[in-house]
Amino acid sequence: MKLKGFSFSAVEAGIRYAGRLDLGLVYSDIPCVTAGVFTTNQVKAAPVLIDKERLKGGYAQAILVNSGCANACTGEKGMEAARVTSAILSMSLNIPETMIQLASTGVIGEQLNVAAFERSIPKLVEGLSPDNFELVAKAIMTTDTVQKIAQKTVNIGDKEIKLIGMAKGAGMIMPNMATMLAFVITDARIIFPELHKSLAHGVARTFNRITIDGDTSTNDMVLVMANGAAENRWIDGDSAGDRKVFQDALEEVLMDLALQIVSDGEGATKAITVRVCGAKEEDQAERIARTVANSSLVKTAFFGEDANWGRIMAAMGRSGVKFSPDRVDIAFGDAVLVKKGLGLGKEAEQAATQVLKEKNFTVSIDLNDGKADAEVYTCDFSIDYVKINADYRS
Amino acid sequence: MKLKGFSFSAVEAGIRYAGRLDLGLVYSDIPCVTAGVFTTNQVKAAPVLIDKERLKGGYAQAILVNSGCANACTGEKGMEAARVTSAILSMSLNIPETMIQLASTGVIGEQLNVAAFERSIPKLVEGLSPDNFELVAKAIMTTDTVQKIAQKTVNIGDKEIKLIGMAKGAGMIMPNMATMLAFVITDARIIFPELHKSLAHGVARTFNRITIDGDTSTNDMVLVMANGAAENRWIDGDSAGDRKVFQDALEEVLMDLALQIVSDGEGATKAITVRVCGAKEEDQAERIARTVANSSLVKTAFFGEDANWGRIMAAMGRSGVKFSPDRVDIAFGDAVLVKKGLGLGKEAEQAATQVLKEKNFTVSIDLNDGKADAEVYTCDFSIDYVKINADYRS
Repeated sequence: MKLKGFSFSAVEAGIRYAGRLDLGLVYSDIPCVTAGVFTTNQVKAAPVLIDKERLKGGYAQAILVNSGCANACTGEKGMEAARVTSAILSMSLNIPETMIQLASTGVIGEQLNVAAFERSIPKLVEGLSPDNFELVAKAIMTTDTVQKIAQKTVNIGDKEIKLIGMAKGAGMIMPNMATMLAFVITDARIIFPELHKSLAHGVARTFNRITIDGDTSTNDMVLVMANGAAENRWIDGDSAGDRKVFQDALEEVLMDLALQIVSDGEGATKAITVRVCGAKEEDQAERIARTVANSSLVKTAFFGEDANWGRIMAAMGRSGVKFSPDRVDIAFGDAVLVKKGLGLGKEAEQAATQVLKEKNFTVSIDLNDGKADAEVYTCDFSIDYVKINADYRS
Repeated sequence: MKLKGFSFSAVEAGIRYAGRLDLGLVYSDIPCVTAGVFTTNQVKAAPVLIDKERLKGGYAQAILVNSGCANACTGEKGMEAARVTSAILSMSLNIPETMIQLASTGVIGEQLNVAAFERSIPKLVEGLSPDNFELVAKAIMTTDTVQKIAQKTVNIGDKEIKLIGMAKGAGMIMPNMATMLAFVITDARIIFPELHKSLAHGVARTFNRITIDGDTSTNDMVLVMANGAAENRWIDGDSAGDRKVFQDALEEVLMDLALQIVSDGEGATKAITVRVCGAKEEDQAERIARTVANSSLVKTAFFGEDANWGRIMAAMGRSGVKFSPDRVDIAFGDAVLVKKGLGLGKEAEQAATQVLKEKNFTVSIDLNDGKADAEVYTCDFSIDYVKINADYRS
């Protein structure tokens, strides 16, 4: 994947381990309109704190991303270390420090290996090439088993604009938190408020609707950089139609990346959509879907390919949302197994069990109490999840 | 264990499987002042709905408890089935139906095997004996690996009163939900409002502070029956001192049972106390402790004996409680490994790792922001947890 005006590079910096791509760079020839959405966790990693401050300006020109160390819970020393890395890069690229966004993923509570950055940044910058997008997508992989990239092309007026994105998911070299990083770049010409609105809207409906284990990382972030190279008519406050086209395209890229993350969740063997409909309000539908999608008991049942709808009802019951259990219908794929809160018996359960054998399926829950709906995306909970997370640092 | 005026029985009723004690009876010669605390899950099993209604009278004389079927999500048919079982027992014991409390644990969504009750209740009643307390404690076991009983004796004035209790924990023949049942009987003479207050207070500090996997069952209940056989001076609204003595004794029995449940959690290898102190308010301390104790990432790290305090900080950060990360101290047992939000390095971590090798330990989190504290009790998250919950019904 390529995008006019952007170049990419990745190196083995030895931040924690040798012989592994662990430092990546996304660079734009010119400052880009840039928006970011960051973790809501109160404990925020140093790069998150720095990026949020810098993005108040609405522009960035480079993203420097490392794996192996989260630079979280590292205090003032960690902040200083992060600033040093961007100072080095700033000199090397000859751009202001404030134009650099930082991202880290890895172990929490350990100080950043600044020497590794010092040593590697010259080589990193030297390696910049329009062809290295996939290399950066690889450098941010950790326990991810596949690299995650997505793209979309749409027309704004008579110009074609392109979005390309990469993400890393629920796993690291030493899985510490399910850190999610996603970077999208586009050649669209768009003003900051519209870009930010589009991103916030998209993230709420994609990355914020996926769940691997209910934990939230100190380091999560999604960035989108727009360099305007497509020379489309400006997407601004007066172009709602164009904004919608761009926003839908961005949402599609984000959803593509988010679903790739779920499919590659730590130890996951299945990707599951939990769809709740017939709710009075969308946020109620979402809360129920999220509680079901986060339940360890539901997720182990999916792993065991057991059509155990009782666990779903019980998870719904503790979601904090009021509903009538005796109006609930539940289906796995097309196989309805609960009507008005009651199981439909062995045959229905056997059909539902067949659905559970698939790699991707939807659990549909109808509350029959309104018109609102929401979807949450999750994976099953396997023996390997425990192995991966227990064996960390060993 | 014995208690004057009470008798017990358990049989193999074949409710789901043959050759397994699955039906138990606790019987008092006279009506007992009885209080109950029930699941807060919106989806409530039939016995829970019936018991709550009956306990408005404040008296009960028997508890009929079965495993193998939860009688939850079974609609009006399930309610009727439960009523039939208590009608049969009522005739057999010659007591009013309203004097019977029902409890069930097992698969959700399947109808109760009423024929098995019909067949077995005569034998169950016939088998009543003051010596069979442990037999009932065994009949309510399912995937529990040990029976859970506790007792306490205290003096009220010149009379000795006794409390004995049994519980079943986070596992069933086919683990469906982490149903918790606990029954405590006592010879104390106490009026209903005082008994209820004591129970509610005790449950809030014991059963409601343990967590295996964050799921809440449709069937959870804790009952306490007091027959007054100790002939102590009445514990009533005017005897705050005596109430305190009784309440503390009850809390001790409940805590003993609750900790036995945690230690025997599905697949658990360790029992862990998460203690949060230095909070502004107790409920804030509890929310932080509960979020940490429920985190799959924290619990897998405990299983892996990894002193991964970063996961603890991250869980705290998503608890919804405001705190200053840079004031947080964390210790495992006596080994302090975080001071003012920063790790103390390799040596401290090695000492903390030694603590994690123990079967029981405390994680202490000091927010250094107030005087309130709270404890939550949990277990680690092992490979066997997933196996147990995935292999259900196979």
